[in-house]
Amino acid sequence: MADTTYDVVGIGNAIVDIIGRCSDAFLTEHGATKGHMRLVDAETVVSLYKAMGPAIEISGGSAANTMAGIASFGGKAGFIGKVADDELGRIFGHDIRAVGVTFRTPPTAGGNPTARSLILVTPDGERTMNTFLGVSPELDHGEVDANLVAAAKVVYLEGYLFDRPEAKAAFRQAAKLAKGAGRKVALTLSDSFCVERHRAEFLDLIRGDVDILFANESEITALYRVASFDEAARLARVDSELAILTRSAKGSLILSGEKAVSVAPEPVARVVDTTGAGDLYAAGFLFGYTAGKSLDICGRLGSLAAAEIISHVGARPETALAKLAAAKGL
Amino acid sequence: MADTTYDVVGIGNAIVDIIGRCSDAFLTEHGATKGHMRLVDAETVVSLYKAMGPAIEISGGSAANTMAGIASFGGKAGFIGKVADDELGRIFGHDIRAVGVTFRTPPTAGGNPTARSLILVTPDGERTMNTFLGVSPELDHGEVDANLVAAAKVVYLEGYLFDRPEAKAAFRQAAKLAKGAGRKVALTLSDSFCVERHRAEFLDLIRGDVDILFANESEITALYRVASFDEAARLARVDSELAILTRSAKGSLILSGEKAVSVAPEPVARVVDTTGAGDLYAAGFLFGYTAGKSLDICGRLGSLAAAEIISHVGARPETALAKLAAAKGL
Repeated sequence: MADTTYDVVGIGNAIVDIIGRCSDAFLTEHGATKGHMRLVDAETVVSLYKAMGPAIEISGGSAANTMAGIASFGGKAGFIGKVADDELGRIFGHDIRAVGVTFRTPPTAGGNPTARSLILVTPDGERTMNTFLGVSPELDHGEVDANLVAAAKVVYLEGYLFDRPEAKAAFRQAAKLAKGAGRKVALTLSDSFCVERHRAEFLDLIRGDVDILFANESEITALYRVASFDEAARLARVDSELAILTRSAKGSLILSGEKAVSVAPEPVARVVDTTGAGDLYAAGFLFGYTAGKSLDICGRLGSLAAAEIISHVGARPETALAKLAAAKGL
Repeated sequence: MADTTYDVVGIGNAIVDIIGRCSDAFLTEHGATKGHMRLVDAETVVSLYKAMGPAIEISGGSAANTMAGIASFGGKAGFIGKVADDELGRIFGHDIRAVGVTFRTPPTAGGNPTARSLILVTPDGERTMNTFLGVSPELDHGEVDANLVAAAKVVYLEGYLFDRPEAKAAFRQAAKLAKGAGRKVALTLSDSFCVERHRAEFLDLIRGDVDILFANESEITALYRVASFDEAARLARVDSELAILTRSAKGSLILSGEKAVSVAPEPVARVVDTTGAGDLYAAGFLFGYTAGKSLDICGRLGSLAAAEIISHVGARPETALAKLAAAKGL
């Protein structure tokens, strides 16, 4: 992995999260499925926002959260994603740059607004996302910065990008660019409903361009249409050079060739908001991976970052992850 | 206080807070005085935002926070303040309405943007505010809703409004309207530098239209240009029908005619961010006051609300204050 300036470059939706608390009944009333992400249109995002309680705004986006996490560990990360030239777009750009991530995708003026996700957190800490993508899928071919992608050890792609054909093309282009430059391609499956929508294409990508696969239990079983996690893990091991399967409170399982490494979760005093748990696990893992650490250490860094993020509201670290890692001797 | 529909109507700057952490050195480097609010222009707010770390956005504004607190206790509150027809303006409007506060000041389109305050929180939890007022002072006479003011037991005014001549006029008009309708007028001095800027006018108001005065230790000593708190308290007692003096960790002192009530602070496990402490103390006090509670109970409700707000980031309650009050038997 010589001649690289970046550890990881992520490509994903550039989103500002609007996070509020709600009851389980509120989710039912508004047709949201707990724990999942659904796309909503401009009209729905307005009416749902009107109905929900007071909220706070924090920059988000799955791959963007992961890049912020890598930077918080002290890694060198870049992000490619589309915002509008509006207030939320400026907030997104500020927050990702302020943590040290390179972000130079030009904002688009005069069209759709910056993406936002209304994130409803129930009393159990589970988050349910209602995302209005706005300008985010309008990332065109020319905006996938080939130099940035080629300069990274790993290019990290979020499955959510598949939900819009325009973004899918950028996604495929980035994977091709990375492979061409001899880099590793990582993919996160994002959400089991997202997997249901794009199963064949995901399988095709995983068996082709993807080197490193991140998925949680429901995503990997949805991908292989099997009921058992063990069966899904067996299939993932066949298809992926490196598969990292997260299981919430059960920790994670890392599969690489003949190797299988089980990682315990990091204990958390109180789960406040699970938004970003998977994103930050990936941040810790990839920070370790690009630094050449063992799979066990990579997994422990992932668990550490996930534990930090679920102990407060929002999907960006409040405490420098480098400090937490140092305290654990990682 | 018959024929009232509202407990309190607040008039103040309609602000979205942009809250991030920084070192003490960062404050010095950027010419900010720790613990205070300073007004910054459009250019400075951009350059300071660029320099500061990642942030989160939460609706704020001193009187607006107080009204949100009263609603969180179960009181009936209204707010009058000016936002622009932009994204931050919609966020402000959403958050204050979502907590149950009546807010119907029309937003202004096409001019200055919604006000924002860059709030820098140092490791000790102290907040330092850099406020760009934008459209906020453009509240004109016609927009101080006379019916709303006349329908409230108390009209609550923030001293910060004095920093712009336009807003000052609205302030004076509201005080006049309230007095005319036989209501109580409350004033908070907001900040000791704000007091320095407007001492004579504040004294004039306090000796004239104001019935209830809120101030902290540095504000009240600045008002009377005395070094000792006791001396300032003695003078406040002469000038005000009811003076409520807050002293951070030393609790508060309530003065009314011959009476002096000392209230202990509510213990807090860890001070995370002091933003809104004074605003929420006023919320608890005024909720109790308009419900006809004793001065001691009013003060304890104030301490309870202040303790909730300093235990997390942001100046709006995360936990329903009615629930906390019930748990304490208040």
